[in-house]
Amino acid sequence: MTQHFAQRMQAVQPSAIGELLALGADPSILSFGGGYPDASLFPVAQLETVFREAIRQPGGSALQYAPSDGLPRLREQIADLMRADGTPCRAQDVLILQGSQQGLDFAARMLVDPGDVIVTEDPTFLGALIAFNPSQPRYAAVPIDNDGMQMDGLEAALQANPRARMIYTVPDFQNPTGVTLALPRRKRLMELANAHDVIVLEDTPYRHIRFTGESLPTLKSMDTDGRVIHLGSFSKVLVPALRIGWAVAAPALLDRMGLLKVAADTQTSTLNMAATSLFLDRYDLGAHIALLRQAYRAKKDVMLDAIRQHFPQEVTVTDPAGGLFTWATFPEGFDATAFMRDVALPIARVAYVPGASFFPVTQRANHARINYSAATEDQIRQGIAALGAALKSHPFP
Amino acid sequence: MTQHFAQRMQAVQPSAIGELLALGADPSILSFGGGYPDASLFPVAQLETVFREAIRQPGGSALQYAPSDGLPRLREQIADLMRADGTPCRAQDVLILQGSQQGLDFAARMLVDPGDVIVTEDPTFLGALIAFNPSQPRYAAVPIDNDGMQMDGLEAALQANPRARMIYTVPDFQNPTGVTLALPRRKRLMELANAHDVIVLEDTPYRHIRFTGESLPTLKSMDTDGRVIHLGSFSKVLVPALRIGWAVAAPALLDRMGLLKVAADTQTSTLNMAATSLFLDRYDLGAHIALLRQAYRAKKDVMLDAIRQHFPQEVTVTDPAGGLFTWATFPEGFDATAFMRDVALPIARVAYVPGASFFPVTQRANHARINYSAATEDQIRQGIAALGAALKSHPFP
Repeated sequence: MTQHFAQRMQAVQPSAIGELLALGADPSILSFGGGYPDASLFPVAQLETVFREAIRQPGGSALQYAPSDGLPRLREQIADLMRADGTPCRAQDVLILQGSQQGLDFAARMLVDPGDVIVTEDPTFLGALIAFNPSQPRYAAVPIDNDGMQMDGLEAALQANPRARMIYTVPDFQNPTGVTLALPRRKRLMELANAHDVIVLEDTPYRHIRFTGESLPTLKSMDTDGRVIHLGSFSKVLVPALRIGWAVAAPALLDRMGLLKVAADTQTSTLNMAATSLFLDRYDLGAHIALLRQAYRAKKDVMLDAIRQHFPQEVTVTDPAGGLFTWATFPEGFDATAFMRDVALPIARVAYVPGASFFPVTQRANHARINYSAATEDQIRQGIAALGAALKSHPFP
Repeated sequence: MTQHFAQRMQAVQPSAIGELLALGADPSILSFGGGYPDASLFPVAQLETVFREAIRQPGGSALQYAPSDGLPRLREQIADLMRADGTPCRAQDVLILQGSQQGLDFAARMLVDPGDVIVTEDPTFLGALIAFNPSQPRYAAVPIDNDGMQMDGLEAALQANPRARMIYTVPDFQNPTGVTLALPRRKRLMELANAHDVIVLEDTPYRHIRFTGESLPTLKSMDTDGRVIHLGSFSKVLVPALRIGWAVAAPALLDRMGLLKVAADTQTSTLNMAATSLFLDRYDLGAHIALLRQAYRAKKDVMLDAIRQHFPQEVTVTDPAGGLFTWATFPEGFDATAFMRDVALPIARVAYVPGASFFPVTQRANHARINYSAATEDQIRQGIAALGAALKSHPFP
């Protein structure tokens, strides 16, 4: 250990996410904490087929090194998916990433110097804050409501922060709240980004898990100036274990992300890229997603019904039109972290994610993110009932 | 595109590696350029078995998210391999990485501020320079000979550079030269690192591909002060496509690398970790490596025989005791980059990697890295004969 290192390491703050992830490891705890998809819906037989086929490809090509930008065929297929979703995209506009998380890391490294400002939703995705923090940004957190980020708040944040470099948003079924950015706000967000000359980082892991209504256009599809970096992922619509995500961006941005990809890890797994590509060729991803939508909508309904039945009246939750999470708001003065530690875990045997760490600037303790995708409907009923009983037995302050 | 971005991007330099990789893509060119293992030796049937088994694991556990540090069983198995190789190691000392390349990136991000000095071999691994460059280091490049880095040169570099933060070395069958750091120099390197209080980054992708003699102790096994970050990889001994590497380091260093892992990409592919773990449980990695050693030694001998037969007398090459590369030195004034562009590619239809880009400080044009692992023995004979004829038909300056 060097003295220099010891000093330098004070700049890298440990985070709560490791401890949160560890909570899910105790099999006697029912966890609504993670963002895990339902493993019973994984397309196991199809994956077995495409992995066997990829491993057996002539010349061992799926077992060898591959171009750092990603397998050309997979980039084509992703461009096809993007266009089918209404976003102009060519294969060369796609960079394959190690999950979309890698795009968060690259964007911050590319765009943010210490003290620069990243504008986020308030609250926002904790994993994004973890990716951004090593670049030592300041944050401007914009309040949200049921239609997503509030545009007067965004405008004020951009005016107050000339060093704003990037607006980070999860426009569809946001993590942690489940809310979706309304169409007029999408248009206004792009106007403001253009006017203030900032990059927009659009993160869409849940976009295709929609329960009701029609998809809204991506911000990338409204991008007239090459300033949107769009991130996508197969983690929620196929399986998380492949770690296949992607960025779509203007050439000048994508080229630089490609250089960071070479530097960061050379490439994403060739085998996983090849198997994903074969899956898209052989099977109907849209049909699989339709199954997921149906199943997760049913679970969401079960969870919200159970919450209405068992939680104290003072607790409100969002009713997301898609995605994996609902967001609970408890009365002021309630500490969701302390309640989890003292009551929910030891007595109700149920975990959620306390909301405080999702707030980049001013942490608010009276929230929780509750996941409905991972547990069975029976587990949801039982767990929410136990959590509700625990809440009722500990009156709010 | 923002004005800020346009300015900032001037700090990220494009590199030649993309163009070099592209050379291997023309199927009519015989490439000695890449560091590809021999695909005909991939354990295809075994991989098919372990991937099927992993995909079918109960509860879809190998298809789900996993701890960001890596699957616990695989960390145990890697610790076992490290101890069998003479390096003290426990499971909790192992962090699974997206290839050892990710460890190069993390080390620089953790330890190096702009203007800090990284000490390297001269020449050194190009991929390491690509990983280090975004941290904007200065380099001190230490001359090497057939026993690896010269210790008087290292001592002088450390004395001249009080901002030296890290010594980067590939001690076994170095990339690009194939030379191995002799035992007395390993001891001296650790003495100097201790005396000057710098981190040692030990990169060992080729360590187990040894043709003759006994393994030398790792630098990590000589580390009395927790200052060696040891990087290992399955890319050369199993298949590159899995992208499974690892770091072994003292807890304070490994914890911080673990935080960077969460930020960078959350985790390495669960499925690839699970399949690798099953491979290590079911099959004999040591026996597979013994096959690789035999095959690559034979190819190395074929290449060196062909070079002696066909190259002009003025060209010298290293005779590596392991690994994938030999390093050619041409007479002063010879430009290996120009010769490849003007003669080797269009006339001989053969590629190598021109040596200039492996030098971090002062590029020397009269070198080439030549790989013998990827091509067949017949291709090696034919390609070296063609390259030799081309060299002889273009007299040295």
